Amino acid sequence: MMRHQPAAQPQEQEDIMEIGIIGLGRMGANIARRLMQGGHSCVVYDRDPKAIAAVEADGGKGVASVEALVKALKPPRAVWLMLPSGKITDDAIATMSGLLSKGDILIDGGNSFFKNDVAHGEMLKGHGISFLDVGTSGGVWGLERGYCMMIGGDKWAVDHLDPIFATLAPGKGTIPETPGREKSDPRVANGYMHCGPVGSGHFAKMVHNGIEYGLMQAYAEGFNILQTRDDPAIPEGQRYSFNIGDLAEVWRRGSVISSWLLDLQAIALAKDPKLDAFSGEVADSGEGRWTVEAAIEQAVPAEVLSAAVFTRFRSRRDHTFAEKLLSAMRFEFGGHKEPK
Amino acid sequence: MMRHQPAAQPQEQEDIMEIGIIGLGRMGANIARRLMQGGHSCVVYDRDPKAIAAVEADGGKGVASVEALVKALKPPRAVWLMLPSGKITDDAIATMSGLLSKGDILIDGGNSFFKNDVAHGEMLKGHGISFLDVGTSGGVWGLERGYCMMIGGDKWAVDHLDPIFATLAPGKGTIPETPGREKSDPRVANGYMHCGPVGSGHFAKMVHNGIEYGLMQAYAEGFNILQTRDDPAIPEGQRYSFNIGDLAEVWRRGSVISSWLLDLQAIALAKDPKLDAFSGEVADSGEGRWTVEAAIEQAVPAEVLSAAVFTRFRSRRDHTFAEKLLSAMRFEFGGHKEPK
Amino acid sequence: MMRHQPAAQPQEQEDIMEIGIIGLGRMGANIARRLMQGGHSCVVYDRDPKAIAAVEADGGKGVASVEALVKALKPPRAVWLMLPSGKITDDAIATMSGLLSKGDILIDGGNSFFKNDVAHGEMLKGHGISFLDVGTSGGVWGLERGYCMMIGGDKWAVDHLDPIFATLAPGKGTIPETPGREKSDPRVANGYMHCGPVGSGHFAKMVHNGIEYGLMQAYAEGFNILQTRDDPAIPEGQRYSFNIGDLAEVWRRGSVISSWLLDLQAIALAKDPKLDAFSGEVADSGEGRWTVEAAIEQAVPAEVLSAAVFTRFRSRRDHTFAEKLLSAMRFEFGGHKEPK
Amino acid sequence: MMRHQPAAQPQEQEDIMEIGIIGLGRMGANIARRLMQGGHSCVVYDRDPKAIAAVEADGGKGVASVEALVKALKPPRAVWLMLPSGKITDDAIATMSGLLSKGDILIDGGNSFFKNDVAHGEMLKGHGISFLDVGTSGGVWGLERGYCMMIGGDKWAVDHLDPIFATLAPGKGTIPETPGREKSDPRVANGYMHCGPVGSGHFAKMVHNGIEYGLMQAYAEGFNILQTRDDPAIPEGQRYSFNIGDLAEVWRRGSVISSWLLDLQAIALAKDPKLDAFSGEVADSGEGRWTVEAAIEQAVPAEVLSAAVFTRFRSRRDHTFAEKLLSAMRFEFGGHKEPK
Repeated sequence: MMRHQPAAQPQEQEDIMEIGIIGLGRMGANIARRLMQGGHSCVVYDRDPKAIAAVEADGGKGVASVEALVKALKPPRAVWLMLPSGKITDDAIATMSGLLSKGDILIDGGNSFFKNDVAHGEMLKGHGISFLDVGTSGGVWGLERGYCMMIGGDKWAVDHLDPIFATLAPGKGTIPETPGREKSDPRVANGYMHCGPVGSGHFAKMVHNGIEYGLMQAYAEGFNILQTRDDPAIPEGQRYSFNIGDLAEVWRRGSVISSWLLDLQAIALAKDPKLDAFSGEVADSGEGRWTVEAAIEQAVPAEVLSAAVFTRFRSRRDHTFAEKLLSAMRFEFGGHKEPK
Repeated sequence: MMRHQPAAQPQEQEDIMEIGIIGLGRMGANIARRLMQGGHSCVVYDRDPKAIAAVEADGGKGVASVEALVKALKPPRAVWLMLPSGKITDDAIATMSGLLSKGDILIDGGNSFFKNDVAHGEMLKGHGISFLDVGTSGGVWGLERGYCMMIGGDKWAVDHLDPIFATLAPGKGTIPETPGREKSDPRVANGYMHCGPVGSGHFAKMVHNGIEYGLMQAYAEGFNILQTRDDPAIPEGQRYSFNIGDLAEVWRRGSVISSWLLDLQAIALAKDPKLDAFSGEVADSGEGRWTVEAAIEQAVPAEVLSAAVFTRFRSRRDHTFAEKLLSAMRFEFGGHKEPK
Repeated sequence: MMRHQPAAQPQEQEDIMEIGIIGLGRMGANIARRLMQGGHSCVVYDRDPKAIAAVEADGGKGVASVEALVKALKPPRAVWLMLPSGKITDDAIATMSGLLSKGDILIDGGNSFFKNDVAHGEMLKGHGISFLDVGTSGGVWGLERGYCMMIGGDKWAVDHLDPIFATLAPGKGTIPETPGREKSDPRVANGYMHCGPVGSGHFAKMVHNGIEYGLMQAYAEGFNILQTRDDPAIPEGQRYSFNIGDLAEVWRRGSVISSWLLDLQAIALAKDPKLDAFSGEVADSGEGRWTVEAAIEQAVPAEVLSAAVFTRFRSRRDHTFAEKLLSAMRFEFGGHKEPK
Repeated sequence: MMRHQPAAQPQEQEDIMEIGIIGLGRMGANIARRLMQGGHSCVVYDRDPKAIAAVEADGGKGVASVEALVKALKPPRAVWLMLPSGKITDDAIATMSGLLSKGDILIDGGNSFFKNDVAHGEMLKGHGISFLDVGTSGGVWGLERGYCMMIGGDKWAVDHLDPIFATLAPGKGTIPETPGREKSDPRVANGYMHCGPVGSGHFAKMVHNGIEYGLMQAYAEGFNILQTRDDPAIPEGQRYSFNIGDLAEVWRRGSVISSWLLDLQAIALAKDPKLDAFSGEVADSGEGRWTVEAAIEQAVPAEVLSAAVFTRFRSRRDHTFAEKLLSAMRFEFGGHKEPK
C-alpha cells in the first residue's frame, strides 16, 4: 500500500494554477512541493526564513511577509494556510480577512475545530471571501502518496480549485475501483471530496482521526495480548513467545485486518522489535477529543473511540489519584495493603 | 452506616449450635468470635497454632488437626471452611469428604468460583454430605457490623443452620425497612439469603464484588477529576483546588451518592488527604474477572465492570507494549517523536 | 438511610433570615418549605400562579413578578434561583442583574454549567452583586432528608447565608462522624460546603452526578448479569433464577455495596420485581456529559463515567447505523447474513 | 487491495503433495480448490454428498467416509479438518486419532479454542500423530486472495507441508516489502507463519479476530457519528448530511485509515447506502470473547476489544433489565418518569 504515487500532471494549460501557501512545516512544505511537481506555481511564506529557502530550492517563490504574498498573487487569489490549529490559525485568518479581496479564496488546510470554521466562514463571507476548510490526511507520506482531502465550503470555490486538489490527491493508483460506483462523483475515487458547507471538511477529518485512534488502539491491545503471552505465570504449554514483527508482517497479506496502519507497524517492528526506543507516553491531538465530544453532543455511543483517547491520557500519568483511592478503599474495608 | 451491630442472641436453648471452623485468618477468626458472642460453640482449626490460640483466648475450642475437629463435633456435624479459594479450598473439601459422614453439612464460606462449587457439591452429594456455598461480605468490619451472606445449596441444610446464619448476619439494625416487603422472606431483611442451588451463593457474591469494583471505580474517576482540576493548564477562574476529604464527607449526608464505600473514603482521606501512603498499584481478586467472564458467557454487556477490572490491570504495569506501539505508529505516519 | 431529618431550627433570633425564591418546581417549592419549617421567611415567585399558591399555603409570601419579589425583600437581599439550567437561568440572571442592588446576593441553585457560572459571576460582580453557585443534591427526598449543598462564590456571602444553608442541609443525623475530622470545618459534616470560587460549587455537583451515573451503571450491569443467569443456553446446574429484589435487600445490610441508591433499588423492586413499568429508554441530563468533557479537558481517563453516559445514549436508539455497518462488513468478508 | 492472487504453482515435481480435507463448507471447499489450482491432489469428504460432488467437479477425489479418506491417502498422510469448532471438531479429532498412523499429520484449520488444541495435541502425540493448529484468515475472499495462515505445532510437520501452505498463502502480491526484513523468515512475507508450539496458531488467529472486532467497531462508531450529524437538534450551520459511501471511498486513498475492511465498507455502501438490508443485530463468534478472556487471564487491559464485543451483545437485546433499573432509580430519587 505504500507505493509511490506521482502528483497528477495538469492535462491542459488552463489547469495550471497559482496558489499562496502560508506555513511551511512538514505538511505545508510538502504540499507546495507536490503542487510544483504537478506543474502549479506556489508563492510561499513562513515566519522561519530557512523554511522558505528550503521550498525555494524546490521551485517555490518565497516572499518575506503575508502582505507580500497577497501582492504577489493575481486576483482572484487562492491562499492555503497550513498552520497549527487554534490561536495561530485564528490570527492568520483575521489578518488575511484584511488583506484578501472580494472573490478570493482562503483555505484552512490544518486541523481546526469545525465550530471555529463556521465562525471563520461567516466572518470571511462578510468580506466577500470564500472560505474552504480542508481536512488533509497523509502525514509525512503525503508528498509521495498524495493527500486525502475532505473539503467543506462553497461549491464554486471547490470546483474552481479542482486542478489544485486533483494534483494533491493520491489519484486512483493501484487501488481497485469499488464496484457500483460508476455513477458517483469521480473525484472521490481519486482521494478528495466536497463534503458539504463550511466546517464539514474538518468535521469529516476529525472523525477520520477519531477512527484512527480507535484502529490504533485495537492493534495495540491485540499485540499487547500477544506480547504478554510469554508470562511465567501462564501454565507451560499455553505459554507462547510470539515474534510480534512477524505477526504484523504475516497479517499484511490475505488477512482481514490488513491496513496501512499495519504496514507501518511492520516497518516499525522490523527496525525495533521490542520498541525499546519509545517511552510509552503517547500524545493526543485535538481531533480524538473532539470526536468524543461530538458523539456526546449527538447523544450517540462511542465506547471504543473514547477508550482510545483515555488510554493515551493514562499513558502520560504516573499513578493516578484514582488508583490510590482504590487502594485506600481496599485497605479500609478489607485491610488489604498496597503501600508505596 | 458504621454502627456497632451486636450479634443476635439465640432466643431459645435449642437455637444454640455447635460448628467447626477451619481457617482462622481475619475472616475465619472473626466469624468464630461473632458466633461465640451469639452463644454458639466453635471448634476451631488452623495450620498456624498461633491463630488457634488467639481464638481459644476468646472462647473457642482449639484442635490440632482436621481429624480431631471432626471427632470433636457431634453428628450431624457442620463444618465451615474459610480458606483461600483455589487449590487450598479444593484440597480441604477433598479431605473433608473422607472425614465427614452422611447427613453432615460442609460450608465453603470463602470466595470460590461457582463452577467449582457445582463440582464440589456433586462430589459431596455422593458421600451423603450436603454442601453449602456461602458468599460472605463484611471484610474487617464483619465482627462489628455482621456479615451479609448469600447462600447456595439444599434448603434443609440452610434451614437447619438458621441460628448460625442469624447470629452472623447484621440484622435489621437502624436501616429502615423497605416498604412493600412485608410478605417477603424475613431472613433477607436481616442480611442473609438462600439464593438457590449449589453455586448460586458464590455466583451472587461474585456479582456483588463485580458491582463493588464498578462502584469503587466510579468514585475513583470522579475524585480524580476533582483532584486534577487544579492544573496550571486550566484557565484561571475555571481552576479549582478542592478539599477532597471534605467533598467525601459532605456527600455522606443527603446526597444521592452516599454509601458505605463513601464512608470509608471519608475515613481514609481524613487520615491521609493526598493518599501519599499508597503506591497506586491496585490488586484484583478473582471475582471481578469472573464477573466479566460471566457477562461474556451470558452475552450481556458489562462495560463498567470490565473497565474497572482493566484499570487495576493497568495500574500494575509500567508502560505497556500497547502504548509503545501507539507511539511507533505515530512516528511512522506523522514523524511524531515520543522517545524514551 | 432514609430517615426523616427535620430542618435545623435557628438557635438565635438573629439567625432568622429572609430570602426570595424564584422557580417553584419540585425542588424550589420544597426548598422554600424546608426553610420555612426552619423558621425563615420566604418571598416566592413562579410564572405559574398555582405553584405560588401551593407554597403560600405552606406559609410563603407569594408575589406576582420578579420586580415585586425584589421590592418585597429588605436589602441586603438574597435571591435563590431554582430554574432549569440553560437559557431560562441565563435570562433570569440577566434580569436580576438589573433589579438587584450593590451588596445583594444572587444564588443559582440549579444545575448550571460551571463555565456559565464564571461568566455570570463576572457580570454580576460588575453590578456589585455577589453570585453563589450552589450544587444541590436531594431530589424528591430533599424536603424530608435535607439537601446536600456544594457552594461556590465569595466567602463573606457564604458566611452571611449560613443560617439558610444550615437549615436546608441534612445535618449530622444518625450518620456516624468520621474519625480524625475533629478540626475540620463543621459545616461539612452537616452536609454543606464552601468549595471555592464561583463555579466550584456546580463543578463539584457536576462530578457528583457523574459519579452517580457510574454507580447506577455498576449496579445495573451487576443485576443484569444476575437477572439473565436464568438462560436456557446455560448448562443446568450452573443456571440460577435469582430473586433480584431479595438480593437488593440483602445487600443493604452488612455488605460492601450498601448505599442509598441500593435502598432505592430495593424499594423499586419491591413494587415491581421485573420493572415491567419501565420502557428501558433512559434519559440523561447535562452533568454526566459535562463530567466526561471535563475529564477530556483535564486529560484524565474516565472510562466508567463515559460508559455510563453512552449506555443511556444507546438505550434511546433503535438499532444504530454502527451496528448495521458491522453486519455489512461481516457479510462482505465472511458471507454472514444478518438481514432485517 | 482486492486484487486477484493466483495460487502458487509448485516449482518442482516433488513439491506436489496429496492431502485429505474433511469439511467442505465455504472455507474447506475453497481451500481444496486453491490447492488443486496449485497442482496438489485433494481427497475430500463431507457429510453432505452435494458438497463432495461440488468439489469433485473442480478436480477433487471424493470419498464416502473418513475411513475411506484415510485409506485413499498414502502414508505419511496429511489430513486437514475444516469443521465448526467445538464438539464437531473435537469428535472428528477423536475419530482421526484412531484412524491415522504414526508419522501422519492432522491439521485443524478451523477456529478452535487454543486450550483445546493443547489437549488435542497431547492426545495425538500419544498416538505418534503430529497435530498442527492453523488459524486461517481469508473468508469468502480466500480462494481468490489466498489465505493468511498462523500455524502452531511441530517444526518438522510445518516444514514438510510447506508446499501446501505456500500454495494456500496469498504470496507477496503487489504489497510492497517491509524494509529491514531481508533476513527474516521469507514465508512470513508470503502470508504464512510458524508461530510456535501447538495452540499458538489458533491463539494468534484468536487475537487477530479480536483486533478485527476492535477495528470494525472503530469504523462503525466513526461512521455513526457522521451519519447522525444530520440531526434537527444540531444548530444549523453545524449540521451536515454526509454521503457516507463517498467518505468510505475517499479514505481508501492516501488516508491513514485505509484498510481492507474499509474497502469492504465502500463496497457495501455502494450497494446499499443506508444499509437498510441489515437488521442491526450483530452476531459474534468465539474469538472475540476468548480474546477478552485471554486479556483477563494475562491481566492486561483490553478496553477497546471488550467494548467491541459488548456492543454486539447489546445489539441482540431489546431493552435490558439494566436499563430499566436505571430508569427505576431515576424515578425513585428524582421522580423522573420513563414508562413503557
